[in-house]
Amino acid sequence: MAELSERSGLPVPTIKYYLREGLIPPGDAVGATRARYGEAHLRRLRLVRALVDVAQLRLDVVRSVLDGIDNARTRHDAVGAAHMRLSRTDGEPASHESLRAVDEMLNRFGWTLAPDSANRTALARALDAIAGLGFPVGPDLLDAYANAMRGAAVVELNRVDLAEDRETAVEHAVIGTLLLEPVLLAVRRIAEVNVSRERTARERAAR
Amino acid sequence: MAELSERSGLPVPTIKYYLREGLIPPGDAVGATRARYGEAHLRRLRLVRALVDVAQLRLDVVRSVLDGIDNARTRHDAVGAAHMRLSRTDGEPASHESLRAVDEMLNRFGWTLAPDSANRTALARALDAIAGLGFPVGPDLLDAYANAMRGAAVVELNRVDLAEDRETAVEHAVIGTLLLEPVLLAVRRIAEVNVSRERTARERAAR
Repeated sequence: MAELSERSGLPVPTIKYYLREGLIPPGDAVGATRARYGEAHLRRLRLVRALVDVAQLRLDVVRSVLDGIDNARTRHDAVGAAHMRLSRTDGEPASHESLRAVDEMLNRFGWTLAPDSANRTALARALDAIAGLGFPVGPDLLDAYANAMRGAAVVELNRVDLAEDRETAVEHAVIGTLLLEPVLLAVRRIAEVNVSRERTARERAAR
Repeated sequence: MAELSERSGLPVPTIKYYLREGLIPPGDAVGATRARYGEAHLRRLRLVRALVDVAQLRLDVVRSVLDGIDNARTRHDAVGAAHMRLSRTDGEPASHESLRAVDEMLNRFGWTLAPDSANRTALARALDAIAGLGFPVGPDLLDAYANAMRGAAVVELNRVDLAEDRETAVEHAVIGTLLLEPVLLAVRRIAEVNVSRERTARERAAR
């Protein structure tokens, strides 16, 4: 436990808390009060920490995602499970208008989704929320995102194929889904600031 | 209060909790046990709800973002404040390697950031986290994201200029920063699934 703390950089009480919460598997018992932890524990601990710190997930969501990894048989299943658990389908259903807007975007891009896809509902609900605040997202912006993300997905997928054993591949899929999101969002904010600045400069120059 | 509950669709205890936590301003007292709530309360309530439900922010982060809105004088300030508060700069500093990778990307795109930019640190830390899990992000993927987000930012910014009074403009800026993120991420997952499926089909056909 002391070694696990040292190698992970996490305090012992935090590790004990994660153990109690079932976020990392118990160690192999060595006598009554000692347990042995291996590389798998360290790796899982780093993943939990990254999901909490970087992806800023709540602990209940982290547990749900990890259950998804542990039960997934293939990379595709793991991605599906992660999407399912991250895109909450409980609560208010999405409006017909937003679901139709999603389907129209899918059509324009020649994309399909399972009819019960969590991603379809999640996108429609995100559109509802923003429309409810008087700031509706039109097809122009949806298409801009879809175009942008199609280009990025091609590059993302080039990375995943390098993964080898099932466990690593599944872990990579979830990391790729979740931990690349903060990277993308940080890049988006940087792009926003710069595009906004460039535009202001252009408008000033035009006057 | 009953009317606020009905119009917002939120239970009275939730509204009371938000009031106690300072997430919505107190109503105008009307007698000892009654208060009056107006359109501004309803609007703020919807914003809080969207930040919790859609952006999935923790309540302490929501409060911090709302403080940013309330104290911001311009749209630009509001965006800066939102970025600052959302990109936590406490905790571990970013590695020099990742900070250099960010700066090199900025150079390739002709972009600049303030030296103490929260976004620069946030991106570098996100890169560190993913590298720590054995899944480093190279310049190819960073550039793919930057290209994708530059294109999207141009379309996003076309919307913001439509905003009029200061308060609406500031609110729109924060909504645009925060509530478009779930839209973008849902579109990303949909793109991932479809690009992955297209690629698998192409590989099968090539065999």
